[in-house]
Order: sequence, then C-alpha cells, then structure tokens
Amino acid sequence: MADKKRVVGFDMGGTKMLAVVLDEELKQVSKAKIRTPVGASDKETFAAVVKAIREALDKGGTTAEELEAIGIAVPGPIDRAEGKIIELPNVGMRDYPMRDKLQKELGAPVVLENDVNAGTYGEFAAGAAKGFRNVVGVFPGTGVGGGIIIGGRLYRGTTGRAGEVGHLVVEAGGRMCGCGKYGCLEAVASKTAIAKDLVHLAMNGLAPTILAKAGTDIAKIKSGLIRKAVENGEKAVLRVVERAAWYIGIGVGSCIDLFDPDVVVIGGGLIEKLGDRYLKPIIRSAREHSMIATNIPIVAAAFGDDSVVTGAAVLARREIRGE
Amino acid sequence: MADKKRVVGFDMGGTKMLAVVLDEELKQVSKAKIRTPVGASDKETFAAVVKAIREALDKGGTTAEELEAIGIAVPGPIDRAEGKIIELPNVGMRDYPMRDKLQKELGAPVVLENDVNAGTYGEFAAGAAKGFRNVVGVFPGTGVGGGIIIGGRLYRGTTGRAGEVGHLVVEAGGRMCGCGKYGCLEAVASKTAIAKDLVHLAMNGLAPTILAKAGTDIAKIKSGLIRKAVENGEKAVLRVVERAAWYIGIGVGSCIDLFDPDVVVIGGGLIEKLGDRYLKPIIRSAREHSMIATNIPIVAAAFGDDSVVTGAAVLARREIRGE
Repeated sequence: MADKKRVVGFDMGGTKMLAVVLDEELKQVSKAKIRTPVGASDKETFAAVVKAIREALDKGGTTAEELEAIGIAVPGPIDRAEGKIIELPNVGMRDYPMRDKLQKELGAPVVLENDVNAGTYGEFAAGAAKGFRNVVGVFPGTGVGGGIIIGGRLYRGTTGRAGEVGHLVVEAGGRMCGCGKYGCLEAVASKTAIAKDLVHLAMNGLAPTILAKAGTDIAKIKSGLIRKAVENGEKAVLRVVERAAWYIGIGVGSCIDLFDPDVVVIGGGLIEKLGDRYLKPIIRSAREHSMIATNIPIVAAAFGDDSVVTGAAVLARREIRGE
Repeated sequence: MADKKRVVGFDMGGTKMLAVVLDEELKQVSKAKIRTPVGASDKETFAAVVKAIREALDKGGTTAEELEAIGIAVPGPIDRAEGKIIELPNVGMRDYPMRDKLQKELGAPVVLENDVNAGTYGEFAAGAAKGFRNVVGVFPGTGVGGGIIIGGRLYRGTTGRAGEVGHLVVEAGGRMCGCGKYGCLEAVASKTAIAKDLVHLAMNGLAPTILAKAGTDIAKIKSGLIRKAVENGEKAVLRVVERAAWYIGIGVGSCIDLFDPDVVVIGGGLIEKLGDRYLKPIIRSAREHSMIATNIPIVAAAFGDDSVVTGAAVLARREIRGE
C-alpha cells in the first residue's frame, strides 16, 4: 500500500480551474491550470476537472494511490454532508454529486468546500494569517467573499453558510445587490460594482484605457485592466477604486467590532492586481470604522490564487484525519 | 464547610442595580434592586453593590459561605484577566479592581462580564435561546449591545471585546455615533437615536405625550414613555419606532449572513416595553436583509431584565468550575 501523504487542492473557478498537489509540509509538488469550459455539460465539466487533476499528478510523478485526500473549492453553494454542488452559475453545474463521482474516478476521498472559506483557511494554514487563531478573510473580486476562523477552526455556522461578509449591509437602502438585498458590501465594493462605475466613466471620456479595451461592457473589465487604467494616470478610475476600498474598509471595521480577530486578510483578484494602491485605503477606512481595535494587522493574502487550492487541500486532509 | 451551590448574579446598570441569588437549577431564590447612586465616589458605589448583594442573600436566607460564585455584569469595558472595571461612564467608576475588592468583602469568587454578553448567555442558558448552539443576541436600549455564542460557548474574541453588533456600520457616512464612527447601527437605531427624533417631533407638535412628560430633553425619554405615546395613537412616534426597528432588522440580517446562527434573540428595554409592535418590523426587515437564511427564529428575550443577572451568575459558575 502506497504512503498516502500527498493531497490535491482544486479551485473550480468560473474562468479558470487550478489543481495543485501538496506534500506533507504543504509544499507544492506540481500544478496544472485550465480554462473553465464554457457552455459545457456537467459530464464535460467533470471530465475537465479529472483531466486537470491527473495532469497535476503526472507532472509531479504522483499516483492517485498516494493521495490522502482531494479538496475541491467551489464558488457557490454546496451540500457538504451529501458532497454535492448545489449550484455553480458561472460553470453551469447544478445539483451535481461531485464528491461521489470524483471519489469513484480517482479512488481518493474528496471533500467539498466553499472557495473563500478555503482561501481564508489557506492563508491561515500557511500564508499571511499563519500562527493566528481568530481570522477574518475578505476576498473582493467579482463578488465579495468572506471566511471566518475562530479558535483555529473554520467557522461554518449552523447550516454551513456563515461568513458572507459581502452581504453585510453597509448602506441601508443603497444599491441593489445580485442577491436581491440593497446596500450589501458586495453591491457597492465588488469588482462588478467598480466596473459599473468605470463603464459610466468610459462613456463620459474619463477612462480612455477602459474604453479602449472593454468599451462599455462591464463583463470585459478585469482587475488587470483596472490596474492599467490607474497606471496610465486616469484619476477618475483611481477615485472609483479608492471609493470601493473605502467601503471594503467599512466592512472590515464592522467585522473587527463583531469578531475582535487577531488579523484580517484581504484576498482575491483586486488586491492581487492593485496591491498597496488598494490595500492602503482599505486599512485607513477600517481604522476609521472600527471602535474596538485600531491596531490589529490588516494584510494582503500571501498566496494570491494559491490560497484557495492550499486551503481546500488542507481542509480536506484535516477532515479525513478527523482533526 | 457549607455546600456551595448558590450563585449571585449582579447587574451594575446605570440607573438601577439588580442582585439575584440562584440555586443549582438556576431558579431564583431571592432578589434585591436598588437605584444606582448618582454622583457617588467609587467607595460609595462599591458599598451600594455590597449592600444590595447582602440584601438579596438575606432575603433568601443564603449565607455568603454557600456561594459558589458571584457574577458581576458591567455595562462598559472591563479587564477580565485583572478583574477590573476599566470605565463605567454612567456610574462614574474608572480603573476599579472590583473582583478583588468584592472577593475580599464577601469571601466568594467573583467574575466580571460585559452586560450584553451576560444577557445573551442568560437567554442561552435558560431563556429564549435555550437548547441552541449558535446564538446572536442584540440588545437595543440606550445603546445597542450584542453577544455571540458559538458552539455553546460565549465568543469574546481575541481581546475580549467581540460582539459589538451596535457598531456595525449600516449606513456608510450616516449619523454620528457616540463611539465616534458614522452610521453605526447604534447611531440610527438605539433608544437614544429614537429619542433624538422624538424631541424633534415634540417640538413640532407631533408627539404631545412626549412633550408633556419629557419636554424636549432626550435624557427624559424612557422606553415606557415611548410606549405610552404609541398607545395614545401618536402615529409619527410609531413611525420613528418602526424606522429604528427597520435598522435593527438590517443589523440582524447582516449578523445572520455572517454567523448563520440557530436563533437571534432581541433583548433590552425597547423590546420589553414595546413588544410585538417593535419585534414584528425587526423580523420583517431582517428577512429582507438576509441572504442565507430566511426562516431562522428571531425571538424576544424571555427574561427581560433578568437575562443579564442570570447570565452573569451562570457564566461565573462555569468559569469557577473550569467549564
């Protein structure tokens, strides 16, 4: 019998999917990345997941028999007990028994997890929040995700859906959110919210870089493009980014007053591309919007994209070990 | 040696102080209530606390030797490790070693706790949240307090100050709060916030009951007076109450999305005096302002004033037992 020490972490992103193989010490052995198939059937998507995992295994000379666990991070609601993906709008999956299918295919135990829970846990296990016990993770991207670690354990709440930092209402009666509520943090501070303002600026001649690359299509505005417009000196774009950061700081400040954590980690696409330009106004605003703790560290995720796969892998391992 | 089965719970309120003696099963043996001394020195206040506790003991025929623990609930910042009251503005105490003084005086172990933590725990141990594991308590009164129970244990955070539900920012850039932030739940939804609007109404002839009893002095507006104005059919007063309840519902909805709890308990003076008139609009608003759980129970505290003393007593007992 093979020595089962390696783990796979997998991130089922809406635009790309990432598979990594980690060793006992959480060091990356190998990785594989694919574009998420567009308009694919569940069967085709599943086949793509399997292929990416096999590719990552092959690259590092790992066999499926050496795997202790496979952790799958999902950007949408899951049923952990049943191991099902409830809905994955960007990928198109619905009510899919991912755990059982994948276990059968690869012969290793599979654990599903929410992607931002996994990202926060990855930073806690090996990244910017390592060594802390109470951690809040805020991941602004297409939406604004959140993850909460209490006493060194991921806090999932009663029905497994805790940590929706993006749906804190920060502006009563404000902008409509994708979730149907009004004034959610996500509605005023996500990349989508930024994009809505940027196409408006583009229409008015205030964001030429945006106009040139994305026109007025909010779906075409990626974090990298926002960075380019800022680097090109488009001041109105910077102001939109800073306003979104101000709102994120309000959410962070509220989380500090609720959770009194050791550290807050900011992850996701915006921080990765914009760095300190984005982090500094978040910190400034969080200090202004927290009553109880003005000095706790508010830090950028250390792993970028890899925080999610790392967390998914570690959570899966710990669950299999009964830790 | 006496059988140490009884516990004292004490609530150091800004207007009144309440001492109860509870038996092994958390049944009330006896109680005593005093008005909080105004403008008193620390020594005088301490003497009043001791007197109230002795009175409660005497009434139930309990001796100090029978006490397993004394729990003191404090409406202000405390240093639990040192057993000190850091500041108690309404009472006037500052940097006071309450635990050691009281232990020396009464000969039983003393534990300090934040009052809303105690109130939430009281409802969890024996009241409206009994039998649940993940509980959020929201106590709108002069301020808006909060308490969080996770996995059956009071969650205090890293520095002991978690649970400040009243300082969630629900209206970015909104009304100034007593804490210095803008748009906190407490700034728009506490009894103080209601009172600010009611004196405005009173000045404009829209709240005759308020004007008759309190004039335009916000400090004179108590929850009972607000109820009277509503019962007298003063519609503008009811609208102010309902608007405050709407904001509380926003805070409750945000807490549901963050904590995914089993139950939310609404305690404090407003719910006690206003009942369903206040609770129903809170529930309606919370349902509209929560994404993840639309059906979890949102209930009124079962104990009224007694939730704080009960929780203080139970928390003290559990701490002394090392539970």
